[in-house]
Amino acid sequence: MLEFTPENLSAADVERLRAVYEPLTRSVRALIDATIRTQVDFDVVAAAKAEIDSATARLQSKQLDGTFGIRYLSTGERMAWGNVAIGIRNPIAPPLEVHHDASGTVWCDFHLGAAYEGPPGHVHGGVAALILDHILGEAASDGVNPRFTGTISLRYVRATRLGHLHAEATTTRTDGVKTFAVGHLADDDGVTVQAEGVFILPRWARGQPGPE
Amino acid sequence: MLEFTPENLSAADVERLRAVYEPLTRSVRALIDATIRTQVDFDVVAAAKAEIDSATARLQSKQLDGTFGIRYLSTGERMAWGNVAIGIRNPIAPPLEVHHDASGTVWCDFHLGAAYEGPPGHVHGGVAALILDHILGEAASDGVNPRFTGTISLRYVRATRLGHLHAEATTTRTDGVKTFAVGHLADDDGVTVQAEGVFILPRWARGQPGPE
Repeated sequence: MLEFTPENLSAADVERLRAVYEPLTRSVRALIDATIRTQVDFDVVAAAKAEIDSATARLQSKQLDGTFGIRYLSTGERMAWGNVAIGIRNPIAPPLEVHHDASGTVWCDFHLGAAYEGPPGHVHGGVAALILDHILGEAASDGVNPRFTGTISLRYVRATRLGHLHAEATTTRTDGVKTFAVGHLADDDGVTVQAEGVFILPRWARGQPGPE
Repeated sequence: MLEFTPENLSAADVERLRAVYEPLTRSVRALIDATIRTQVDFDVVAAAKAEIDSATARLQSKQLDGTFGIRYLSTGERMAWGNVAIGIRNPIAPPLEVHHDASGTVWCDFHLGAAYEGPPGHVHGGVAALILDHILGEAASDGVNPRFTGTISLRYVRATRLGHLHAEATTTRTDGVKTFAVGHLADDDGVTVQAEGVFILPRWARGQPGPE
C-alpha cells in the first residue's frame, strides 16, 4: 500500500513554498549542466565542490527522513514535487509541465540538455521511455486516482536530438481496471519515438471489487 | 551521423580526470537529494542557493560549447562520462556500473534514492524503463559499436521499492543488423519489471551494405 500524505496547506501556502523551492531547484539544474560541461582547472573544481558541499550541509541540517512522496492538498490538488519527471523540487526532472486539452490529449513542451544525453548530441533512448511512460500515465489517469504502468512498448523511429521537444498522449479505451494509451515524442523534424501502453487502476483505488 | 570524438589521453590521464570529476559529481548527487528532502527555513535555502549559484558560475567560466558526447581513447575504451545512465560526470546518472560475466550476461547493482521517485517510496516506472533500456542495449552491443534501441517492451510485475536494486540482461539472438535482448529489474524481493527489445546496429557502423 502506498502512502499519500494529506497536507493542511492553503493555496497561498503552496505558492509561498513554490516561490522558495522552484528557484533552488532551477539553480541545481544549472549546476548539473555545468558539472558535465566544465573545463575549468582542477583547483577551480575543488573550490566549486567546497561550495556545493557547504550548500548540501545547510540543506541537510533539517530534512525529511524519507522521500518527498505525494501529498494531497485539501483542494484535492496533488503535490508530486519530488517526482523525477514533473517534480518542481526534483533537479533531475526537466521538469515536464503537463497540459490537458479539451479533447483529452495530454501534452508537454520541454527542453533537454547535456544531462539527458545517450548517443552524442541525442536523447538517451531510456529518457525518451521515461518521458513517454509518464505522459501516457497522465493521459490514462483521471486526475483523482493515478493509474500505474502495466505494460509499455516503445518504437524508436530515429534518434531524438537534444533541445526543444514535444510529447503527447491520449487514451484509446478503458476496459475494467485497464486503460489503453498511445503517444509519441517529437523533435522539430517530427515524431522520433512512438509508445503504447496499458495502465492499471491500483487495487486500493478501486471503488468495489473489480473483475480481477 | 553521430560524432564520436577521439581523445589523445593515456590511462594515467584518464585516472587523473576521474579522480577530479567523480568526487565533484558525487557532491552534486548529494545536493540533488538534499534539495528534494530539505525542510530548513527559507533564509537557509537562500544561503544554500547563493553558494550553488557561485559554484555554477565557477564551473561555467570555461566549458564545452555543447554536450560531453562520447570520446574514444587510443586504447579503444569508450568514455561516455556525460551519459545519463552511466556517466561518472553526470549527476543524474545513479550511475550504473555495468559488469559483463563470462556467459554474456550484463548486470549492475545500484541504489536509487528520493530523486528517482514516482509512486511514493517507489521507483518511477519510467526510471525502470531508462535503466532497462540501457542495460539491454549494453548486452546487445559488442563493446566496439553501440547498438541503438529499435523497440523495447516492458512489463511491470509490481512496484519497485526505492533502495538497492539489481538489473540484468542478455541477448537471445542476432539476425543481421538486429540483436534481440531480454532482461529484468529486481529489488530484494525479486523481479519487478521484465523487458525485451530489439537493438539495431547503426547504418554508419555496418561494415558492408546490410539487408536493409
